[in-house]
Amino acid sequence: MAEPKQERAVKTRETILFAAAQVFDECGYQGASISKIMHRADVTQGGLYFHFKSKKGLALAVMAHQQEFVHFPEGGVGLQRLIDLNFFLAYELQTNVLFRASVRLAVDQGDFGVQDDTAYQEWVDQFYVHMCAAREQGELLDDVDEREFATMLVGAYSGTQIFSNVSTGRADLPERITTLWRYLLPAVATPETIRRLRFPTSAKHRVAA
Amino acid sequence: MAEPKQERAVKTRETILFAAAQVFDECGYQGASISKIMHRADVTQGGLYFHFKSKKGLALAVMAHQQEFVHFPEGGVGLQRLIDLNFFLAYELQTNVLFRASVRLAVDQGDFGVQDDTAYQEWVDQFYVHMCAAREQGELLDDVDEREFATMLVGAYSGTQIFSNVSTGRADLPERITTLWRYLLPAVATPETIRRLRFPTSAKHRVAA
Repeated sequence: MAEPKQERAVKTRETILFAAAQVFDECGYQGASISKIMHRADVTQGGLYFHFKSKKGLALAVMAHQQEFVHFPEGGVGLQRLIDLNFFLAYELQTNVLFRASVRLAVDQGDFGVQDDTAYQEWVDQFYVHMCAAREQGELLDDVDEREFATMLVGAYSGTQIFSNVSTGRADLPERITTLWRYLLPAVATPETIRRLRFPTSAKHRVAA
Repeated sequence: MAEPKQERAVKTRETILFAAAQVFDECGYQGASISKIMHRADVTQGGLYFHFKSKKGLALAVMAHQQEFVHFPEGGVGLQRLIDLNFFLAYELQTNVLFRASVRLAVDQGDFGVQDDTAYQEWVDQFYVHMCAAREQGELLDDVDEREFATMLVGAYSGTQIFSNVSTGRADLPERITTLWRYLLPAVATPETIRRLRFPTSAKHRVAA
């Protein structure tokens, strides 16, 4: 039996989105073109325009799907969960082209006339949830503002990955995140919590050479 | 008496660099063009190509001059100096088009096929000098690694300004830098030092509305 039409459309849309992410990741927004994306996705112009009206529409779709492109496994709670998520995202930036492209577009969005901090704010919301769990578990120092810290961390994290990308193609990102946390924790967590927290060994989070 | 030829050439070069920075700041690398820059600088094509061979050459020159575009007034030493510099740079990002363009190009450099962390490393070197002065003055905790901290701070600062730019056009950058330092200081400075450090009031560092 033939695939239902709707299911095929969803698959085609995903194929296009994935191809677009690859092309944006490689070429940036300005260097990408509809024809490159068509070719990569192996779809016709009509097929592409059925789903996306323009290159900008494609970029916005890739950017908007940032959270959907990563699937963080269950486990942990509070500060440990937040730290694990930070390392997980580093690994995803190294290996997941969809996520990497959406992050790149969020950084370069001025290039296509967009000023939209949604992609950043969604990470603030995620980080905030883990900070609230940390508060409930008594892990945080009294004067920590959960949302303020989450906002600061999203900014600091973004720049850390950008600098790491320019320096080493993100090979040293896990080490840099370890350093970032090392200088943040004393302002955030109780000494008992800091002793309990575990940071991954760097080798595990490195892309194989 | 007519201006000496060499002096005129230096002035023309500066005019072109300034015009290029404005155009890169407004349009990004891909959106900028030699003809836009020529028009803005009010020079002929021959005049421009005498100084710069290509758009990429112009971008590299703007990017390379990041430190020359800001003139940090004398005063202070150690951690206070580093903090003052951080706020000074926020003000420059808000108001100095040359500096803003060079920072933007350093972030977007993948767009023109460059992977060069010199602009970042030069800030690391600057921050490192102030960290070493802070160490000499006994301001730092024993386990602080001056270069590691300087590197971390450059990354964290970059992302903080990018997020602030997307959210508020950098209007809230001074507040965000205050927050960043608030969560870094307990890992870095002795309690006496922290009590002594001064952060600017936010109003002073805001761009007038």
